[in-house]
Amino acid sequence: MTDCLFCRIAERGIPAKILYEDELSLAFEDVNPQAPTHVLVIPRKHIPTALDIREEDKGLIGHLYIVASKIAREKGIAQPGFRLVMNCNRDAGQAVYHIHLHVLGGRRMHWPPG
Amino acid sequence: MTDCLFCRIAERGIPAKILYEDELSLAFEDVNPQAPTHVLVIPRKHIPTALDIREEDKGLIGHLYIVASKIAREKGIAQPGFRLVMNCNRDAGQAVYHIHLHVLGGRRMHWPPG
Repeated sequence: MTDCLFCRIAERGIPAKILYEDELSLAFEDVNPQAPTHVLVIPRKHIPTALDIREEDKGLIGHLYIVASKIAREKGIAQPGFRLVMNCNRDAGQAVYHIHLHVLGGRRMHWPPG
Repeated sequence: MTDCLFCRIAERGIPAKILYEDELSLAFEDVNPQAPTHVLVIPRKHIPTALDIREEDKGLIGHLYIVASKIAREKGIAQPGFRLVMNCNRDAGQAVYHIHLHVLGGRRMHWPPG
């Protein structure tokens, strides 16, 4: 069994508030939300960091964006706006080494982005 | 002539500190940097917001990530880490309505991301 938290969520081995899933990806609520809406969109494929994205994964990364937009529309944050964030490695605060796109909205987001 | 600032940069009609370009994308320094490294990666194709990304653009979005990783390696921020941010609409502070991926690093990034 994998010890990757997000692989285990994808396999339904660990519970999460899943909002969407398809054959390539899933989206679930962040357990420590930083905004009224804070959802993570992940690929089912285990890619540890943004640096590990290969040519053959390019369509998959775009797919995460399409899913993020779908979630934003469903949550009612598309028009006011939302921020998409992917952290890579320690200085960015990457907490789980399986890439995930943070979708944050429902409040005014500040600048700089952390 | 387009009145989109980033289309004009891509056409070399407005100057920018361009770090990388290829047939699909370019990367240049943010004029108001929020970290020691702050680069924008944009597609040449005019896509106003993340909500306007279509199925046929999925590979292009992944390409922006590959370019961002390349920039991070060249700037020496890959291993300490970097944050990738895309703002969509007003609440996120989107300033130019041509999608752009912010690549920020060279310092510890904070949480929440703005």
